[in-house]
Amino acid sequence: MAQLDSVAAGMLARVERDGGPDEVAVELPLEIRLNGSPVAVTMRTPGDDLELAAGFLYGEAVVDEAPTMTLPDDLAANTVDARAPGVAPPPGRRFYTTSSCGICGRGALEEVAVDCPRIEGGPRIARGELAALPDRLRQPVFERTGGLHATGLFGAAGGEPLLVREDVGRHNAMDKVIGHALLEGLLPLSNHLLCVSGRLGFELVQKAARAGAPILVGVGAPTSLAVELADDRGVTLAGFARGGSVNVYAHPERVA
Amino acid sequence: MAQLDSVAAGMLARVERDGGPDEVAVELPLEIRLNGSPVAVTMRTPGDDLELAAGFLYGEAVVDEAPTMTLPDDLAANTVDARAPGVAPPPGRRFYTTSSCGICGRGALEEVAVDCPRIEGGPRIARGELAALPDRLRQPVFERTGGLHATGLFGAAGGEPLLVREDVGRHNAMDKVIGHALLEGLLPLSNHLLCVSGRLGFELVQKAARAGAPILVGVGAPTSLAVELADDRGVTLAGFARGGSVNVYAHPERVA
Repeated sequence: MAQLDSVAAGMLARVERDGGPDEVAVELPLEIRLNGSPVAVTMRTPGDDLELAAGFLYGEAVVDEAPTMTLPDDLAANTVDARAPGVAPPPGRRFYTTSSCGICGRGALEEVAVDCPRIEGGPRIARGELAALPDRLRQPVFERTGGLHATGLFGAAGGEPLLVREDVGRHNAMDKVIGHALLEGLLPLSNHLLCVSGRLGFELVQKAARAGAPILVGVGAPTSLAVELADDRGVTLAGFARGGSVNVYAHPERVA
Repeated sequence: MAQLDSVAAGMLARVERDGGPDEVAVELPLEIRLNGSPVAVTMRTPGDDLELAAGFLYGEAVVDEAPTMTLPDDLAANTVDARAPGVAPPPGRRFYTTSSCGICGRGALEEVAVDCPRIEGGPRIARGELAALPDRLRQPVFERTGGLHATGLFGAAGGEPLLVREDVGRHNAMDKVIGHALLEGLLPLSNHLLCVSGRLGFELVQKAARAGAPILVGVGAPTSLAVELADDRGVTLAGFARGGSVNVYAHPERVA
């Protein structure tokens, strides 16, 4: 029988498996509130909860400015509250992953995508440099557990990442990075690149576009809606960045 | 610029990328209705939509019996309706991925897990056979796109899969398999194994437990909450099934 011994407030938990002690990535729910009202619950790896919540609310266009973030007195409550004067919580069932949005017979993008400006201009990056970015995503908890996704923020020239966040949820890792940028006053990310450790679904492109990032690259495959949204929003979308190679699915004009 | 050319009603879309034509996995929203009322929208790969919706509703304990599933006359509507006489749609914001469920200060499992009986008994399987199951997950669309997760249903002795479903969402692939079993009258899966192509998060264990499957194995790492739930619900949870090896994190008594 497994015996969980959670590392306090940490990202790792010790378990007993058949071969002896092992470590796994922590997954716990986080309730995100806005002005005291519950907005969403996400399954996440603890750590950087304020950034995660801020990034989520920004990505979903619930807030347009950095909210004031507070943790409860009891950290074990797994709750964060965002204060944004004058901003109302979204109506029930707003988020498309669980919401009704009347998609029938209308275009998918129009129905599920958050509105944001098309990204024009931005940096150009050498193909070899773009292909090399995933290798520079340091993932200390992944290396011990094999169980986390990562998102990295890079400067226009690539190089070493400015920031890396890990989470059991790929969207959470992206929210943590964008939330950090929001709270630090760094948005839009007009002169930055975002890099993810996994596949490129619609949601990740949406979060990048909303944050104004002109280039998004990942280790894995893109989906059809990810390509379509990147094309529409002006995001350079690159996938299968492995072994010195990379495929560019939208806006290759930024890849030299 | 990418030019999308969706294969009609299919799982693949053709795109133009920088290196020439390519194929990607289709991702489109599906609205799931119950007795005409919208319940959820999921981003999924088209195909087996009725099974996906039935499996989702069963996994979330919205229905306990197979509903009558109908597609709209316009297949492009991306909507399915489940008819279950006397079953009310869940109240707003019910699903934990986006819902408020008052988790503060209470145990995570009690707050986010769907109630279901603990699984007792069930088959025993040889360790080598368990480790080999992921290699037998045929993934025809993944092989062309690299962009899909898969879930397979196996008999008690392992061997070749009885059913494999692919989707851009790992939870959807599982819902399609369990929905198929529900609609075919095969639940509970007391004498079956479930195998997934990726990591083992809390939700996948929950869906397996709710379907009564005594053994769940995956290629990737489990999370802490996945191990905890499997332990509590009597599910044998095995991860890192690769290269003839497998780690068992909960209920190893079923692994010989």
